[in-house]
Amino acid sequence: MGSALANVAIANNSVTLVGTPLDKNIIDCLKKGEHHPGLQVVLNQNIIAIQLEELCDTIMQSADVIILGVSSPGVKWALELIQRSNPSPNILALVTKGLVSGKNANSAPLTYAHTISAQMTDPAGQIVGIGGPCIARELALSYPTRVCFASHEKAVAKKLAELLKTDYYVIATHDDICGLEACAALKNFMCIGVSAMFTAYKLNGSHAKNPVAALFNQAVHETAVLSHWIKFSADNTAADQAAAKNGSLNIAFDLAGLGDLHVTVGGGRNSKLGQYVGAGRLLSDILKTDMHNVTVEGVDTGRQLLSGFRYACRVGTLNVQDLPLTNAILNVIENDQPFKFNFNHLPV
Amino acid sequence: MGSALANVAIANNSVTLVGTPLDKNIIDCLKKGEHHPGLQVVLNQNIIAIQLEELCDTIMQSADVIILGVSSPGVKWALELIQRSNPSPNILALVTKGLVSGKNANSAPLTYAHTISAQMTDPAGQIVGIGGPCIARELALSYPTRVCFASHEKAVAKKLAELLKTDYYVIATHDDICGLEACAALKNFMCIGVSAMFTAYKLNGSHAKNPVAALFNQAVHETAVLSHWIKFSADNTAADQAAAKNGSLNIAFDLAGLGDLHVTVGGGRNSKLGQYVGAGRLLSDILKTDMHNVTVEGVDTGRQLLSGFRYACRVGTLNVQDLPLTNAILNVIENDQPFKFNFNHLPV
Repeated sequence: MGSALANVAIANNSVTLVGTPLDKNIIDCLKKGEHHPGLQVVLNQNIIAIQLEELCDTIMQSADVIILGVSSPGVKWALELIQRSNPSPNILALVTKGLVSGKNANSAPLTYAHTISAQMTDPAGQIVGIGGPCIARELALSYPTRVCFASHEKAVAKKLAELLKTDYYVIATHDDICGLEACAALKNFMCIGVSAMFTAYKLNGSHAKNPVAALFNQAVHETAVLSHWIKFSADNTAADQAAAKNGSLNIAFDLAGLGDLHVTVGGGRNSKLGQYVGAGRLLSDILKTDMHNVTVEGVDTGRQLLSGFRYACRVGTLNVQDLPLTNAILNVIENDQPFKFNFNHLPV
Repeated sequence: MGSALANVAIANNSVTLVGTPLDKNIIDCLKKGEHHPGLQVVLNQNIIAIQLEELCDTIMQSADVIILGVSSPGVKWALELIQRSNPSPNILALVTKGLVSGKNANSAPLTYAHTISAQMTDPAGQIVGIGGPCIARELALSYPTRVCFASHEKAVAKKLAELLKTDYYVIATHDDICGLEACAALKNFMCIGVSAMFTAYKLNGSHAKNPVAALFNQAVHETAVLSHWIKFSADNTAADQAAAKNGSLNIAFDLAGLGDLHVTVGGGRNSKLGQYVGAGRLLSDILKTDMHNVTVEGVDTGRQLLSGFRYACRVGTLNVQDLPLTNAILNVIENDQPFKFNFNHLPV
């Protein structure tokens, strides 16, 4: 996704694309003008692709914007790397999505928007979360979409949007960065349960559509509940508190929630895993065979949710009756049970 | 859908299924115990299927619930038929969806919930709208779904839900019947624009997913705006006004809106028409050839929206900049223009 965004950003900016140690082959290909091996697209030749060892403090310090697109386990490493160069970019934008552990085992998980704000010396307002429906390869091919940039100070998100917008990359802005980050992580998790319906209810060589639609709707509503919980269980800012009080539509009902869930259910690893569990297979078996060594973000997200969710249901912060889909997916992850969803557990 | 619902209702009730003059063959098949020719399903044999001429006042008067499932042009006829028998059912439930003309050419269209309330002598509270993701054939085959029943008095919707609920037909209830009816009609219209993306942006023998997801999200948001406009432009009840003020989530973001749109975009006539216009074909051509004599409800809904929408945008009741998808679909219907959607017209 970092590479795809570089291909967007180059329209109006000069762009240096830095590989992690895991991306050596990608950078080599780009240096030779070959297609990006992950995206299968030839990127704009004006992008300066460099290996990590070529990254010097000067490059880092001259950047107006740093966009972080490493995988979840690399976030801490990348932030330390950035801090060592002591850059003062106007904006740090987050493409990486996921949840991290909260304060203790019973806490709600946190988003990177929470933890990076704490780790960075820059003011929190300079961090921008990027969410919404956006498959990287389609973006690199210039297919149109609309996404959402969010920052505690909406003006910062707007500033980044001005730099990145193109005819095909349309950007809405929002001030709920923690909500956006929570939705972006949760969509992978919810996708497992919605996609399970593809295989649980077969019809005429395809699948029944009513169960998928009913659980897609439920997934959006449960995302709204969980993202609100994640946002406010952590230490939160005055801006968060204000956002909660102004009665605006929960961000889960917009691009970062329902829009991104729509595209995620349409394909990818989380959907594939959901289809396996919907067919009655055990998670342990899937992760040992068909999806061995495959990162399934939705499972990681579920693991981060687990103990905080159980605790919140016990003490009444969350009501498990509002969250039957979450509960059913967590049972798969926690207990390696077959996925069973009882429609009668949906709210009436 | 009337037949499919009869197959649900028979679980807990005695049911008489009455055909219109257009349904003679269906009723004949059911009387012989054959499969329903539309649904391709053998219905529960306890359903008493009768031709219209067998319907007598006694049957009508003994009904606790009348469920109206005729096509849109038959609603007025059916209501007159019902009134002539002078029944006093506890509940009249509406399966038929569509919009009808408002007071004058510049008015917002009305829903059947508005007009039937006016036409019937029964109190408005006894009418129940049925919405949500529900393909009739899947329902008749007992695939699970969750739908929404709405009535001005939520208790009436709950009463009907108690009679109809089964393990696979899960029913939420709501008090926003006009909102539900507007969403149920609008989903067919919005489906045209979302489905156009399937053919407008082809990729690898299938279609790009980002444009579909971005417009699906947009369609839900525009449904919220239009359903609110439709609800409150007409004479409305104190209950409507109260619902508007209580700050609850617009019903478009739930089963009757996003849930039903999801299933509608998945297939059917409106989606087919959308795919034709997305491929660059003119509406006039499609309706003369591939979809000759096919009822496309979304086009009818668009025609009902048209003049009221244009007027509302002129006087500022609606803001066309919030409604670019509606505007693009209406341009197809009004001017027989090729469907063009400019993503840069989406709100930023």
